[in-house]
Amino acid sequence: MTRTELPTDARVVNIGLSLFAQAAAAQGASVVQVDWRPPADGDAEDVRALTDLYGLRSVALDAANAEVLRRLDQGVPQLVAVRTAADVVPGLGDRMLLHPGPPIAYADVCDPLRRSMRAAVVAEGWAGDVAAAEELLAGGEVRLGSANEHAAVVPMATALGPSMPVWVVENRDGGTTAYAPIGQGPGDVAWFGRESAAAVERLVFLREVAGPRLARIVEQVGPIDVFALAAQGVQMGDDVHMRTQASTNLFIRSVLPAIAALGDDADSVAFAEYLAGNHLFFLTLAMAAAKSLTLWAERVEGSSIVTTMARNGTTYGVKLAGSDRWHVTDSPPVGDALYYSGYGPEVAAPDIGDSAVLELIGLGGPAAAGSAAVAAFLGGSMADAARATREMQQICAAESTRFKIPTMDFRGTPVGVDVRKVVETGLTPKVNTGILHATDGSGQIGAGVATAPLEGFRAAMLALREE
Amino acid sequence: MTRTELPTDARVVNIGLSLFAQAAAAQGASVVQVDWRPPADGDAEDVRALTDLYGLRSVALDAANAEVLRRLDQGVPQLVAVRTAADVVPGLGDRMLLHPGPPIAYADVCDPLRRSMRAAVVAEGWAGDVAAAEELLAGGEVRLGSANEHAAVVPMATALGPSMPVWVVENRDGGTTAYAPIGQGPGDVAWFGRESAAAVERLVFLREVAGPRLARIVEQVGPIDVFALAAQGVQMGDDVHMRTQASTNLFIRSVLPAIAALGDDADSVAFAEYLAGNHLFFLTLAMAAAKSLTLWAERVEGSSIVTTMARNGTTYGVKLAGSDRWHVTDSPPVGDALYYSGYGPEVAAPDIGDSAVLELIGLGGPAAAGSAAVAAFLGGSMADAARATREMQQICAAESTRFKIPTMDFRGTPVGVDVRKVVETGLTPKVNTGILHATDGSGQIGAGVATAPLEGFRAAMLALREE
Repeated sequence: MTRTELPTDARVVNIGLSLFAQAAAAQGASVVQVDWRPPADGDAEDVRALTDLYGLRSVALDAANAEVLRRLDQGVPQLVAVRTAADVVPGLGDRMLLHPGPPIAYADVCDPLRRSMRAAVVAEGWAGDVAAAEELLAGGEVRLGSANEHAAVVPMATALGPSMPVWVVENRDGGTTAYAPIGQGPGDVAWFGRESAAAVERLVFLREVAGPRLARIVEQVGPIDVFALAAQGVQMGDDVHMRTQASTNLFIRSVLPAIAALGDDADSVAFAEYLAGNHLFFLTLAMAAAKSLTLWAERVEGSSIVTTMARNGTTYGVKLAGSDRWHVTDSPPVGDALYYSGYGPEVAAPDIGDSAVLELIGLGGPAAAGSAAVAAFLGGSMADAARATREMQQICAAESTRFKIPTMDFRGTPVGVDVRKVVETGLTPKVNTGILHATDGSGQIGAGVATAPLEGFRAAMLALREE
Repeated sequence: MTRTELPTDARVVNIGLSLFAQAAAAQGASVVQVDWRPPADGDAEDVRALTDLYGLRSVALDAANAEVLRRLDQGVPQLVAVRTAADVVPGLGDRMLLHPGPPIAYADVCDPLRRSMRAAVVAEGWAGDVAAAEELLAGGEVRLGSANEHAAVVPMATALGPSMPVWVVENRDGGTTAYAPIGQGPGDVAWFGRESAAAVERLVFLREVAGPRLARIVEQVGPIDVFALAAQGVQMGDDVHMRTQASTNLFIRSVLPAIAALGDDADSVAFAEYLAGNHLFFLTLAMAAAKSLTLWAERVEGSSIVTTMARNGTTYGVKLAGSDRWHVTDSPPVGDALYYSGYGPEVAAPDIGDSAVLELIGLGGPAAAGSAAVAAFLGGSMADAARATREMQQICAAESTRFKIPTMDFRGTPVGVDVRKVVETGLTPKVNTGILHATDGSGQIGAGVATAPLEGFRAAMLALREE
């Protein structure tokens, strides 16, 4: 190869790959390097779709997106009740369980979610033990439904049975109501893929002890503006996904008189112990609130904004506003992981849970920059956390008017993942999440960062173009 | 005066006053301006004292300071009980009230503190109404004592009577125990200089309802590591002085089972309402914890570190470790103030309260940089809050090993105000504080920043040199 020779006084502006710029600089030329990559990595079909969706189609699309963003940002979800799931969750019949992520047949369900389902079957009283529960499930005698298709969201490997207590969160402006189970707390629990006697007992405790008491509390105190608490939580270092300490505590203090009024019986004290030991208590409440907004937003036709992003441990599904269609890929492994001693990636189950609904409305990753706890997890400095927020800024279409980050001059968190921007940049949402054991039922074995697979977003964009 | 002429190629390094540099620059010379001021503003006596205290004397002084700093930074204050003040506070006899700041005669007490004292006298049952209370006080029939001289600290215009419940905080390493009253909460309350029926009733409520319940809670749950909670609070945006929201909530959630176990009687529910409505609840607990450390630190002889900084609304007192001597100046006005509608500086009482004990151990102003709430108060941006912390860094001798500020790369908050640095720089500690009405008993009328008067620190330094 002949060496490239430059005139001595060359001034070079180099766009894209830096190799040429380096060669020029090595020969003493003055070089300005422009960091540029072709959109969608230069994929011809994607570029045609983007040209179309950013071009003539964009006027209608931008109008639809503006309405979607208004709904995601400005709806006011109110906690109005805690009820038994069967009484309120639409379409949740007897002998039926709701699971996270896209619809799935039992044969395809991952190990931790199977265990959680078996624990739920036993807690519901449909089987006497987990072996009998397995027979029912494998024999198709328990129906499965995607929580997301029943106006509900469930975290990690939760299986939601009809007797379980759920948060009822209304978005009155939108006329939508969403549901999520009361959090199971830490430790030996079914939502981490455990099916021990203790895990079953915890589900019974939620039904018999925690649910009725939360119902009385909310009846006495509610309605409660969920995101008013979350917005304060963000000011206090919550991302309101992996960290909900401040929001949980604000919730508890705001209902404290109703907790005191429960009485000093053993069950009420046990309920207080459950609250005291569960700093993620606010998580599922925030998820239900977020879902009440995505339910409203998804009624808008012809938008490029993502309104569902959910994983069942086998597949990862994405939906856009205005479309019933799931765009499904394999559930990814959870990367950048920290494992408990003795565990590693070879025994890690893939990404699972519906909690990424939070990332769609400005919480979780979008709110990372303000969270010392998330920073500690992502590398130790606040700059690590800020990077997570900045990445979401690149693929989101708006900024929250309620969730403000002190460390970014009180700028709003990014809201509204735009599938065009995802495909254009190749960046997909990242979710900080727990990691479950893939096979042996030992529950949570670590935590890490799950990067959504690009393919689902790409398929969603191409489908939008087809419409 | 002849105009100074410079050669055309002059290069100037100018130290101190910038006038000459400006003149040189105006004539086209290249100028480097060094921002320098003479120490202690060039005061000859101060400079001699500083030369002495930084010079030959500094070896012994630095050793003493190191021990003082170790005690302020590393003592572990534990909440061990809530008790009736008369039973535990040393030297608090019958018909006696403890007040903030240096010792003072009733004739010299400011209006809001007088009102608070009258409310306390009525709550103690020594007088039937505030007029009768005034007679007792004016007639010298109620003894007054400086809380700081009784191992106690009290916030704002608190008058602490013997029947009131106090936090008992032990610093076991140091063998010191300190006390502070249970917080009165917001609104129509005596510590804001109110003497209404409601203010008296609140004191009775603290004695009859809140105190006994907190005593049961601490008995059941304690000992509680106060600064472990405060350290988490700092990570969550508390400065743990003007803002204690996160620390208060952490405290409440950690004792929640004991709150539930109190029972559902009307008083227990009223107690829960008092907790739910009092986001500054943690303030006096943190103050007692801080005092348990300054009590330990002040046993070290010959140190230039401040161990008392307290105001009674008339005078402002400073003490150094190893000395019983108060260095007293007039209590300053509270500057940079925000007033409630209809009020202004002309009706503002001077700075009052013992809460500045927090600024001596790394909380309050030293922790401002991490607090969005403090930032909002100081001007709106996190940079405003960071400035407060940086100013304290200039006059403090160490950094906290437990209170870490996320926004400053988890650097420790400044600890240990060194009177040498105060005099050298002319910077004194600033305290964010409430402002009370000076004359009419309407209570809190705003909030602002109280800058400690330099004179007390200067007197302390000169006295240290004399020793």
